[in-house]
Amino acid sequence: MSRFFSEKYLDLEPYVPGEMPKNRKEIKLNTNENPYPPLKEVTDAVAEESKKLNLYSDPDSRDLRKALAGNLDVPEDEIIVTNGSDEILNFAFMAFCDKHTPAIFPDVTYGFYPVFAQINQIPYEEIPLRDDFTIDTGKFYQAAGTLFIANPNAPTAIALERDEIEEILKRNAYNVVVVDEAYVDFGAESCLPLVKDYDNLLVTRTFSKSRSLAGARLGVGIAQPELIADLNAVRNSTNPYNVNRLTAAAGIACLKHDDYNMENCRKIIETRTWSEHALKDLGFEMTTSRTNFLFARHPDISGEKLYEELKKRGILIRHFKGERVHDYNRITVGTPAQMEKLVAAIKEILEAGA
Amino acid sequence: MSRFFSEKYLDLEPYVPGEMPKNRKEIKLNTNENPYPPLKEVTDAVAEESKKLNLYSDPDSRDLRKALAGNLDVPEDEIIVTNGSDEILNFAFMAFCDKHTPAIFPDVTYGFYPVFAQINQIPYEEIPLRDDFTIDTGKFYQAAGTLFIANPNAPTAIALERDEIEEILKRNAYNVVVVDEAYVDFGAESCLPLVKDYDNLLVTRTFSKSRSLAGARLGVGIAQPELIADLNAVRNSTNPYNVNRLTAAAGIACLKHDDYNMENCRKIIETRTWSEHALKDLGFEMTTSRTNFLFARHPDISGEKLYEELKKRGILIRHFKGERVHDYNRITVGTPAQMEKLVAAIKEILEAGA
Repeated sequence: MSRFFSEKYLDLEPYVPGEMPKNRKEIKLNTNENPYPPLKEVTDAVAEESKKLNLYSDPDSRDLRKALAGNLDVPEDEIIVTNGSDEILNFAFMAFCDKHTPAIFPDVTYGFYPVFAQINQIPYEEIPLRDDFTIDTGKFYQAAGTLFIANPNAPTAIALERDEIEEILKRNAYNVVVVDEAYVDFGAESCLPLVKDYDNLLVTRTFSKSRSLAGARLGVGIAQPELIADLNAVRNSTNPYNVNRLTAAAGIACLKHDDYNMENCRKIIETRTWSEHALKDLGFEMTTSRTNFLFARHPDISGEKLYEELKKRGILIRHFKGERVHDYNRITVGTPAQMEKLVAAIKEILEAGA
Repeated sequence: MSRFFSEKYLDLEPYVPGEMPKNRKEIKLNTNENPYPPLKEVTDAVAEESKKLNLYSDPDSRDLRKALAGNLDVPEDEIIVTNGSDEILNFAFMAFCDKHTPAIFPDVTYGFYPVFAQINQIPYEEIPLRDDFTIDTGKFYQAAGTLFIANPNAPTAIALERDEIEEILKRNAYNVVVVDEAYVDFGAESCLPLVKDYDNLLVTRTFSKSRSLAGARLGVGIAQPELIADLNAVRNSTNPYNVNRLTAAAGIACLKHDDYNMENCRKIIETRTWSEHALKDLGFEMTTSRTNFLFARHPDISGEKLYEELKKRGILIRHFKGERVHDYNRITVGTPAQMEKLVAAIKEILEAGA
């Protein structure tokens, strides 16, 4: 830290992304990437667009929002696009929270929420999950701030039903409720159909998981036009050209061939089911996943030890040190071949430890 | 504005980017884009990288920073890369300003500075330029806040010498001085050689102007490691994957063939000189440009009228309404053919008005 750093950030604890090894030789199951690469149609669209890189992107991302409107079946003026969904989440903290309007979210959830609160100097309250890591929705009724609910939640992998979130929306008519649907395409119910009825709902999405574009950084926010206008006021006061030409082109091409993405999601869900069975056979306990990852612990080996032993064998999974979750690991669902190697490696580790 | 928008932003006035017509039929001289497209080597690198879009980008942008270190001749730990240089500027406002440390900049400069101050709730002071739009450097000595100096300045196009900025740095040992070098490659002196001697200097750069990558969004900050660490703390608390795979690949390829970019800068300077003469012949007054744009006024036609008349003829230039600058227009230097058309159109407009 330099002698010039603003004292408001003295206690700032930045988010720590999953390890990113330089030579991708590892089996990398630690950042919930999609194992299936983008279609040639996507890479062709990017290549074509790159010829125009000397020209600024459209600050209103009109073509991309039009493609999204068709795909999501919502009007274009109910859509905002961002440099990854971290950016739309940050904009929501900026627009809808302040020192009088705290952020409220579960105690076990996306680790970036408390960081967004800190960087924006917003007080926040963490509502404890139940012992089984499910959300006690009643604790989110008549809240005294802006709610952030990842659905499905991470790293727990558990989803709420749409009806449960609708009840939260009804009981928070004076609060914005942000529903972070980063993982929704892996088997959960989306709240998108609720946007037309609730002016306090912001749904966020990402192209990083179900649409194989983690490396392009493309996030989306969907809400009624007034909320979108607020978010655009923040965006245009921060980085109006936030979505670059190449990312926009990749996103548009990706949506044109969305069957491919949905088929990949189906394959990942199938592999998830196989992996759940295989890990349960080895003695693991885990939550019911509606995501592209598993949240699992084993009675005979600590979460940290398993993480370290797998790392020695060239397999990366994600371990969190938080008090309630340190027994667990978050394991991305990769290809069948990757998951078979993972299961074989875990078997070896467990046998060696026995 | 929704009923949920934080009251801290009630007075927010977002930045307004230059017009971005949907069908690029116009001659577009309003956003200081480079008229020369990227090399095939750049578009090839982007196409190749796009095959890996399902994988996150490196949050530390190691390869890109390495390429920049070679190009700029500074160590890698003195470099941060961002989603356009607007992002590095915003990070500097966040990291080095607060309610006790205002932002200080000229009254006529990049229009985003006051917006960055507002969005971050930072007080700011505008130091008047002299009547001829030059910076009175003495007014920036022993300042009571963080300085933002665009060099060359925009929209005035005028540059300070490095010695003049060094004097500002010396006289502000307790303040960070941000030197925004977006346009430096068009004939101004860079402050990069001062970084090693001044721990209070942050130099910012962009690939948008001299390197033909406006559509890729790539900004750079260069400073001693302590300042870079502060900026990374902010970056990692906002958007750690801020530079996507495609942009990083474009940047690396672009630097590998930097001769091309430097030759384009030379051509643009040559075209600028031609345009200056042609416009002076038509009666224009203008500042001495060290950028890829001209800042010009004509005694017989208002800035706004000229802007409107050119727009009718399919030529876009940038008009600002500010009190001190509304007589002027900012005109990007395009290709020789574009500038010939501009001059012909202006001639027609002036003759019609006479």
